[in-house]
Amino acid sequence: MVAKRTPQELAALTAREAARHIAEGGLTSAELVAACLARIAAEEERIQAWECLDRDQAMAEAEERDRRRKRGLPLGALHGVPVGLKDIIDVKGMPTGNGTPLDAGRRPFVDATVTRRLRAAGAVILGKTVTTEFAYYHPGKTRNPHDPERTPGGSSSGSAAAVAAGMVPLALGSQTNGSVIRPASFCGVVGYKPSFGAVPRTGVLTLAPSLDQVGVFARTIEDAALAELLLGPDGQDADARESPGPLTATALAEPPVTPALAFVKTPFWERADEATQAAFGELSEALGEQADEVELPEVFARGAGWLRGVMAAEMARNLGHYVDRAPQATSETFRALIAEGREMRAPDYLAARDMRQVLHDALGPIFDRFDAIVTPAAPGEAPAGLENTGDAIFCSLWTFCGLPAISLPLMTGPNGMPLGVQLVGRHGQDARLLRTARWLVRTLSGEGDE
Amino acid sequence: MVAKRTPQELAALTAREAARHIAEGGLTSAELVAACLARIAAEEERIQAWECLDRDQAMAEAEERDRRRKRGLPLGALHGVPVGLKDIIDVKGMPTGNGTPLDAGRRPFVDATVTRRLRAAGAVILGKTVTTEFAYYHPGKTRNPHDPERTPGGSSSGSAAAVAAGMVPLALGSQTNGSVIRPASFCGVVGYKPSFGAVPRTGVLTLAPSLDQVGVFARTIEDAALAELLLGPDGQDADARESPGPLTATALAEPPVTPALAFVKTPFWERADEATQAAFGELSEALGEQADEVELPEVFARGAGWLRGVMAAEMARNLGHYVDRAPQATSETFRALIAEGREMRAPDYLAARDMRQVLHDALGPIFDRFDAIVTPAAPGEAPAGLENTGDAIFCSLWTFCGLPAISLPLMTGPNGMPLGVQLVGRHGQDARLLRTARWLVRTLSGEGDE
Repeated sequence: MVAKRTPQELAALTAREAARHIAEGGLTSAELVAACLARIAAEEERIQAWECLDRDQAMAEAEERDRRRKRGLPLGALHGVPVGLKDIIDVKGMPTGNGTPLDAGRRPFVDATVTRRLRAAGAVILGKTVTTEFAYYHPGKTRNPHDPERTPGGSSSGSAAAVAAGMVPLALGSQTNGSVIRPASFCGVVGYKPSFGAVPRTGVLTLAPSLDQVGVFARTIEDAALAELLLGPDGQDADARESPGPLTATALAEPPVTPALAFVKTPFWERADEATQAAFGELSEALGEQADEVELPEVFARGAGWLRGVMAAEMARNLGHYVDRAPQATSETFRALIAEGREMRAPDYLAARDMRQVLHDALGPIFDRFDAIVTPAAPGEAPAGLENTGDAIFCSLWTFCGLPAISLPLMTGPNGMPLGVQLVGRHGQDARLLRTARWLVRTLSGEGDE
Repeated sequence: MVAKRTPQELAALTAREAARHIAEGGLTSAELVAACLARIAAEEERIQAWECLDRDQAMAEAEERDRRRKRGLPLGALHGVPVGLKDIIDVKGMPTGNGTPLDAGRRPFVDATVTRRLRAAGAVILGKTVTTEFAYYHPGKTRNPHDPERTPGGSSSGSAAAVAAGMVPLALGSQTNGSVIRPASFCGVVGYKPSFGAVPRTGVLTLAPSLDQVGVFARTIEDAALAELLLGPDGQDADARESPGPLTATALAEPPVTPALAFVKTPFWERADEATQAAFGELSEALGEQADEVELPEVFARGAGWLRGVMAAEMARNLGHYVDRAPQATSETFRALIAEGREMRAPDYLAARDMRQVLHDALGPIFDRFDAIVTPAAPGEAPAGLENTGDAIFCSLWTFCGLPAISLPLMTGPNGMPLGVQLVGRHGQDARLLRTARWLVRTLSGEGDE
């Protein structure tokens, strides 16, 4: 039955559905990958999500997966399923360009840890998705699938757009400020950024090690939970020493009691547009006694500035050499950040970084009372134009504190563009966050037990 | 039999001997503490090792330990044994002054983790030992027990001197550059600084969290191994996430094969005085084929500078407020360091800190071939005069890399002052380091199996 689906229907399968059909023999990896490539062929000119696609290599990998299945060998959770990887994630032998002409043609000799783990789960590496320059703000070529005249958000622009456009069911991105949650919101897909320290970043471009976090884009929460394949120490990334997984069993379970949400406007509420403010007011009302508005302590108003300082200093340390080598090949936005980081004094940097823990701990009482924080994923719909990737302000606090976050495509803005609802969980309680997210989706769609 | 010993003989017992006698009933904690207090009464005017002694409280604690023993309750490894704590380590209710008039009379409400762990092992907190100002270079009042006109070294001056003078069998110190190993060398006692991350620093004055490490002073290696009581995460110090213990069983065992030592002169060899250079030449000769001279890669010459930068920046962050509050109450040495740290740029700080791991990893091949590095603990004997605490240069590299180190009082300088032999082990292999240290002591004393 599956085999009779059109390529477009095949490409619309979720990663879990696809993996199940492949495992059961109703679909081959080669058919699925061919369907995704066909979808890309049809849409890529309009969307520009891919930096690099090796069609022959992807088909060859798919056929190898199919042979493996026929031999009756054990299959991973993503056996035969194509994935896209943000072009700051190393894939052995495939150009990995970090969004800069300065790394054009760079071919890593070793897979990133997350690449290796995806392969071990049977995934087919379909290609590399467009990133902004150095995963910072200067945009790449990608357009929003819902309106090509609007930004897809960034920095994981291509991964968000590719999943939204049905080109691939699952893609990896990264977030140093708002680079998973914001494009997920703008493109109308699920974006999930696990707890800081959960996913090793070995082989992923280092921007700011105190902040850099790997995340996933998917069309369902169930697929986002496949991020569990990426979790756990690799012995190389010293910050990756925890594993909040496995996720699936808990994420797919019913909450033992009806979850309670803390509706947090954040000190940056006035940066959300009117429609977003109104939409969240209605959401809060719809949730009734399941959501209480909670005001953050005053100190959180400074959190975005502290993140900015830590990001500037660490990016100056790690990426400043690109500016020194060829300033004219870098964007003004990027050069300004590096210059800012280079001016920063070490004790000010250390003071800002120390505030991560202070803010993190100050949120403890909220998570004692509530299952998750609910807050906008972005100030509004994807802005018109491609010259910037939008405002990350509604992600900054949670990224700074390293909390797990998910953007759910539950709303629509005044121009018909998607608008994400962000849920934020306690550090390390990723599975519970995903479970709460599923409950929220079912509750708002009227499928819940309410 | 034990009970007939003079107070001076009692005070000369090692911590392990004392704990055994107390456990077996041949000695009471009260007798031992009284003997230590008598020794202090006799010697303190000359040595000035103590910042704070509460004789009544110590006697009361000792009597409580004796009552507990009489009731047949389980006894810890230090049951009834007095210990001294450097005056940057918090003891509930006892003045903890951090070596500065600005903290005079400060009485913590909570024990430091190490204090709590010592108490849990049954130790009696005898008092607080003198530290240099903020555990940096500006000296306190302590004098060297072997020659009161010479420095005891620093910053753990009082702990080293108190153990050397027979005032207490065991004392805690800390090392951010050379503050355990150097005073141990100058005072002729065993100083042991466990691997970075092994001992939680919660409740210990924070100088530079990337470098701060707690250590112990004792009269034997066996007693130094009692540091195992301090090891392991406490859930509060995020850097303390390892435990290289337990130590005693391995430390007291015979090495399975004869150890091999790497004699490392370091790039700072010309800062060792002639007598020290000659003594280490002879040591290397005496060890014959058990020691090979190994030259460090050139990059290590910059290691002391990187440590200095990290220390200055982090101390500016953590202690700069003292200078702002009352510059005239701080030393010129300290103010100069804070000013230096405040000038440092964040990316330079980050670059220096990243070199910790680079240098650490560059030592890997040495520890693949050798059980330990053997190197001077200090450039020579304790310098004459009390105006400075000597040069930490022979500690900087190992502290920077977070390696376990021990100073052994095996040599004597031209003025009859002690001179320490420093052994440095692979990170996390503290037990093996102590075992190698015991082997070295026995070999050089002719008691070995050579």
